[in-house]
Amino acid sequence: MVVADIYSEVELTEDQLAEEREVYGGLADTMRSLNEASLRTTIPPAKVNDAIARLKEIDALLREEMIPDSFGVQVNKDGGVRAYGNAVVGMRNPIAVPLHTERSDDGRAWAKFHLNALYEGPPTLVHGGVSALIMDQVMGEAAAAGGRPGMTAYLTTHYRKPTPLGDLEASAWIDSTDGIKTIVKGQLGPVGGEPTIETEGLFIMPRWAREVISPSRFE
Amino acid sequence: MVVADIYSEVELTEDQLAEEREVYGGLADTMRSLNEASLRTTIPPAKVNDAIARLKEIDALLREEMIPDSFGVQVNKDGGVRAYGNAVVGMRNPIAVPLHTERSDDGRAWAKFHLNALYEGPPTLVHGGVSALIMDQVMGEAAAAGGRPGMTAYLTTHYRKPTPLGDLEASAWIDSTDGIKTIVKGQLGPVGGEPTIETEGLFIMPRWAREVISPSRFE
Repeated sequence: MVVADIYSEVELTEDQLAEEREVYGGLADTMRSLNEASLRTTIPPAKVNDAIARLKEIDALLREEMIPDSFGVQVNKDGGVRAYGNAVVGMRNPIAVPLHTERSDDGRAWAKFHLNALYEGPPTLVHGGVSALIMDQVMGEAAAAGGRPGMTAYLTTHYRKPTPLGDLEASAWIDSTDGIKTIVKGQLGPVGGEPTIETEGLFIMPRWAREVISPSRFE
Repeated sequence: MVVADIYSEVELTEDQLAEEREVYGGLADTMRSLNEASLRTTIPPAKVNDAIARLKEIDALLREEMIPDSFGVQVNKDGGVRAYGNAVVGMRNPIAVPLHTERSDDGRAWAKFHLNALYEGPPTLVHGGVSALIMDQVMGEAAAAGGRPGMTAYLTTHYRKPTPLGDLEASAWIDSTDGIKTIVKGQLGPVGGEPTIETEGLFIMPRWAREVISPSRFE
């Protein structure tokens, strides 16, 4: 199990984890729907103001007890990693799509997902930066899946054609390695059978990962 | 006034625009606070379930009347552009920060903003992809501010050092131009007086912009 100093350790039973997913994950799912509805609604001002008043009451309820800062990344005693606050994959983060990424240990990661009106840039199209956001996450997971977790050094996104809102797939794979450096490539799409976006990134393994995974390989 | 086919035209008076900002903008602001509270809350499951039930009632209320798809970009008869649904700057988009960008007609754009726990990647840090998302928007606005609106062809983000959650500044400027191509550079930060992220992007002017702005320049 890889644990960096920056991660906090927790001890939760399987039942506690399941309840957390159901209750707090359910809250995030409800908020995701509400986010979309609040963007697209055209109900009249009086009704909106009623909704605002009721939402503020719930806001006060939720704020009765909160973690002091951001969610961070927790490692459970069973080895499970909980990045519940992550802006792309976080189960508890209502602005995360969220992506449910799959991985294979040859250094690949991929996800199917739906982007609705909340992720728009040009009319009817995915915001170019949202595509980069998603690819950064999937590419980082590909590197980690191949045993080479790292921080992004650079990420280049090539926009080949417009990406429409709707059902999409992202995938990434380790292209090459050199010491602590990992080059990852990826793509988003497809539209008409071809990727709309192609990416390349360089990921650098931090010291804690080098020490835990294979100290001799990177000296 | 530049109007692409993809933009829809609307006719709203100043009073209507002001009411829209107050009512629907107020709804988005309320949702932004609620998003953060829902991520960080630790109130017990029974209270969460009560909140979920009440949120679902409001969801149904908002969905009584909605626009059919995504918000798109509207151009008002007074020439004002309303990208209210935009994932980064959209006044009505609750997952948008939102950025309030400033521009100058020599091709610069900049914004000061605060990123809270919703935008986290590694613990206490801004998600690398969120930085790219924000820079894509600010860089596109710099190109447009200089009279060269365009679609992103590529965007490279160099991560120089970690970007902590909190108060940040982004800026971008036109670096060079060549026919329909515009190279824009940008940076995010600062931390310790230096940028944490530096970016470069290529923006291509679409045909409608070339025709409206200066047809002879791009033939």
